[in-house]
Amino acid sequence: MVKQQRAVRTRRALIRAAAEAFTQDGFASASLAAISRRAGVSSGALHFHFESKSALAQAVEDEATDTFARITREVAPDGKNPLQGLVDATHVLMHHIAEDAVVRAGFALCRDATRENDAALRRAWERWVEDALGRAERAGQLAEGAAVTEAVTAIVAATVGFEVLGSAQERWLSREAVTRLWVLLVPRIARQHALDTISCGPSEPGSAPRLPAAPHQK
Amino acid sequence: MVKQQRAVRTRRALIRAAAEAFTQDGFASASLAAISRRAGVSSGALHFHFESKSALAQAVEDEATDTFARITREVAPDGKNPLQGLVDATHVLMHHIAEDAVVRAGFALCRDATRENDAALRRAWERWVEDALGRAERAGQLAEGAAVTEAVTAIVAATVGFEVLGSAQERWLSREAVTRLWVLLVPRIARQHALDTISCGPSEPGSAPRLPAAPHQK
Repeated sequence: MVKQQRAVRTRRALIRAAAEAFTQDGFASASLAAISRRAGVSSGALHFHFESKSALAQAVEDEATDTFARITREVAPDGKNPLQGLVDATHVLMHHIAEDAVVRAGFALCRDATRENDAALRRAWERWVEDALGRAERAGQLAEGAAVTEAVTAIVAATVGFEVLGSAQERWLSREAVTRLWVLLVPRIARQHALDTISCGPSEPGSAPRLPAAPHQK
Repeated sequence: MVKQQRAVRTRRALIRAAAEAFTQDGFASASLAAISRRAGVSSGALHFHFESKSALAQAVEDEATDTFARITREVAPDGKNPLQGLVDATHVLMHHIAEDAVVRAGFALCRDATRENDAALRRAWERWVEDALGRAERAGQLAEGAAVTEAVTAIVAATVGFEVLGSAQERWLSREAVTRLWVLLVPRIARQHALDTISCGPSEPGSAPRLPAAPHQK
């Protein structure tokens, strides 16, 4: 049992170390030797858990996808204010990209040309934004004739841009940057009565974005 | 003289081949052998022109930067309608990213973790967007209390996002996608009288975006 717990811990340390290495050096340049060293385990231990660098990248992406699913599930539990749920989700997601090496690497791997991939995580985010705006529309939160297609395009593109720009300059992932996007967009898409219920910062004013703990931080 | 012209042609072919290889495989995975083969020249010729893969990447970035400078200089020659100039510049830039391998690679190299770089091209774009909005403000085109800082953030982030998303799916670089962004933003930032002068598509309705020819296509 103790042995099993240690194996779980080692696996997590390797995923985290791989995430850091992929983000810093890119998939092609990150070496397995540097990853095992960073994780503080032997290269034998690495190969026991992961048969290749691709398998490690897949594990990083899987964990980032789990965290993403948790974020989008937890930000809007009651579903009464889907537009606020969308605003909150962008805040929490950007905060995770800034603070959580695995989520950050998960998105960076989606745009790493040195690795074959179908950008599944990024596509999941695109779909979620589209669905969230659809829920806001059905809940009567969007203005008559609101530019929904335009909003999907702008929100997906801007948040993908935040991720890329944030990998060089952290300020692009800040609450301030995300709030600026919504200050611009919310008055353009929300119905008057909904406007009063939307906070462009995270929905609890003055508080930090609510952050479900990432599993490897537990 | 003929020899000199051939040297210029070979150099251009190498830059173009390198751009295609970097975009397809990433900087770290692109091989010099594949680049010289793609350019239809010997590896000796490649080494005559470029001492390393880094030197090739630098040449790609330099040429992309030249094209970028030309685009931003030519889209708004009279400066009477700086907001339209900004709209047009985003259309022409995205069209170039879609169609011109060197410009596409120049931006992709800015976010390639396998290569040391200061993202100079992307930062030039950020500064240009900020300056263009400043010109629009001084020309009285922006609404009273318009969210200028917010607009800079949203426009830079969204266009960077278009570039990244477009590297997987071309539709993100289309006139339709860029127009959707502006349909959303222009009414939020432009003064009423300016609104009537702005086309969210390229400024000549029905026409293709005006595209200065890239130097290697001449």
